[in-house]
Amino acid sequence: MTPSPSPAINFDNNRLSIIDQTRLPHEEIWIPINFYEDMDEAIKKLKVRGAPLIGVAAGLTLAMMAVENKTPEEILKAAQVLRQSRPTAVNLMIVIDRLTPLLKPGFYSREQFIEEAKKIFIEDQELCLKMGEFGQEVIQENDQVLTHCNAGALATGGIGTAVGVILTAHQKKKNIHVYVDETRPLLQGARLTTWELAKADVPHTLICDNMAGCLMKEGKIHKIIVGADRIARNGDSANKIGTYSLSVLAQFHQIPFYIAAPYTTFDPECAHGKLIPIEERSASEVQREWTKETTPVFNPAFDVTPAELITAWITDKGVFHSPDDLQKFLG
Amino acid sequence: MTPSPSPAINFDNNRLSIIDQTRLPHEEIWIPINFYEDMDEAIKKLKVRGAPLIGVAAGLTLAMMAVENKTPEEILKAAQVLRQSRPTAVNLMIVIDRLTPLLKPGFYSREQFIEEAKKIFIEDQELCLKMGEFGQEVIQENDQVLTHCNAGALATGGIGTAVGVILTAHQKKKNIHVYVDETRPLLQGARLTTWELAKADVPHTLICDNMAGCLMKEGKIHKIIVGADRIARNGDSANKIGTYSLSVLAQFHQIPFYIAAPYTTFDPECAHGKLIPIEERSASEVQREWTKETTPVFNPAFDVTPAELITAWITDKGVFHSPDDLQKFLG
Repeated sequence: MTPSPSPAINFDNNRLSIIDQTRLPHEEIWIPINFYEDMDEAIKKLKVRGAPLIGVAAGLTLAMMAVENKTPEEILKAAQVLRQSRPTAVNLMIVIDRLTPLLKPGFYSREQFIEEAKKIFIEDQELCLKMGEFGQEVIQENDQVLTHCNAGALATGGIGTAVGVILTAHQKKKNIHVYVDETRPLLQGARLTTWELAKADVPHTLICDNMAGCLMKEGKIHKIIVGADRIARNGDSANKIGTYSLSVLAQFHQIPFYIAAPYTTFDPECAHGKLIPIEERSASEVQREWTKETTPVFNPAFDVTPAELITAWITDKGVFHSPDDLQKFLG
Repeated sequence: MTPSPSPAINFDNNRLSIIDQTRLPHEEIWIPINFYEDMDEAIKKLKVRGAPLIGVAAGLTLAMMAVENKTPEEILKAAQVLRQSRPTAVNLMIVIDRLTPLLKPGFYSREQFIEEAKKIFIEDQELCLKMGEFGQEVIQENDQVLTHCNAGALATGGIGTAVGVILTAHQKKKNIHVYVDETRPLLQGARLTTWELAKADVPHTLICDNMAGCLMKEGKIHKIIVGADRIARNGDSANKIGTYSLSVLAQFHQIPFYIAAPYTTFDPECAHGKLIPIEERSASEVQREWTKETTPVFNPAFDVTPAELITAWITDKGVFHSPDDLQKFLG
């Protein structure tokens, strides 16, 4: 089996490269990944991002090392570094924890290890397709859907989580319109989601994050679909900063609020949202060129939406409407 | 009487100039206003902005024309142009409607006209001081206050509306901390409010607009104070886009939400918020350099917060806790 082409990552002929997402939408530049340190830097600088994608990318980086005949010990060391490149998205940890047992002395097979990393990539593509199909249950004809950040092909190995549901609805000719939060500070909505939607000819409108409430009041948003970086056992869901505000606004305006995420984003070890580590990033991301660099800043990269504000979770196993149903799915 | 020095506007020796707010905080450049067209352009491009300040600035522009011995007819024509430079803030219309009757044939006195425009400037400074004092009723020791956009000395002739209340609390050593919404798309919070607070040594932290909800959930925001651009007879209040979302988030988290505005921002002719005209501005303000210019954009400059989401209005006549009390104040 070989993975379908991805606009974000490539492992054809066992050579690894990623598109530099910090240069999008203006420049489409592919970066070769020759050392695990390249990927560590790419993840930290958000050249590659999105919870499922950084899992896939970390796995393929270890596979690339196996291709180059690095020893299991060297690969294990790299795995430990990559595991800590970003703290919130659990997919990264889940992929590393799936691959590292294969590095055990006397058990390691180079070919098997490479195949397993590729399998994770292909599996992520299948998970996206399944979410896309299951998600149709909640999308009606003529829906106007709000999404935040980028939960698309640039955030996964496949067609995306939230954007995957949206693309599938578009392919089924449901005549949907997408409102895209620009998603400050790093503008993944403005830079990446609009790029993806334009390529797929999905009608869309870009807004600033602070305009979403006003649109909801005017009845222009029929539902909200976002991705997730980690979902706790009770359904509390961490996602890009600003997601929590949207969930509160959705409840006030009685608009359904959906999280789309594959099983690899669920963290059964994590009892509830307060236990999810939230990455704080540099003040300069907020200050940019328009504020003095002496200005104090608070810059959390994620927030946690409590389960009670989530209408349903769109997963690769179906749409779950309550944390109880979710727990059964998690097993 | 002469006005106190303002960081935003100057009419000393009957010569008019404004600071170019689009260049702040990095450059403090004063622009002479020699023709009413200069002010029309300055208002449209937000070189001068803030509901009370554009009223004051329009009045002083007409006074500048009187100083230069323009005829009442010429001044009236300029007044009609300036009245339409921006549609939402009612202070502009109220100042023009106060000055134009003085231009009537057989009634016009050059000196009186100039004095009246200066009086509006001085009056605005007094209104700010009164709001600052009355506002202390709602500010406790150690309060952490969130504000949006810029409702400070750069938005008024005086110390500001919302920021005036904050500055007064700081002067009274209430040990307050201010969270500042950056306020996309034009970043008046990031560029202007942080500049004012730093000059006054008020402790503050800059956040992206989409982080406010997360801070409220964590108990870090004790109250929210913002300005207004127009307040309808029933208390519905138009203010910078994003204000409505904050009011909904405040209600959900049971945080008091205050509007600070002088009587010149109240529009007794306007029965309710749906009748307030909302300016839509250029897509390029949202797109900037990071989105393709083919990306469709929605860019309303203001939204309307309904009276029921407002805890109280801090005015120059006192703090009013209900629309009924407000109506009595409006008379």
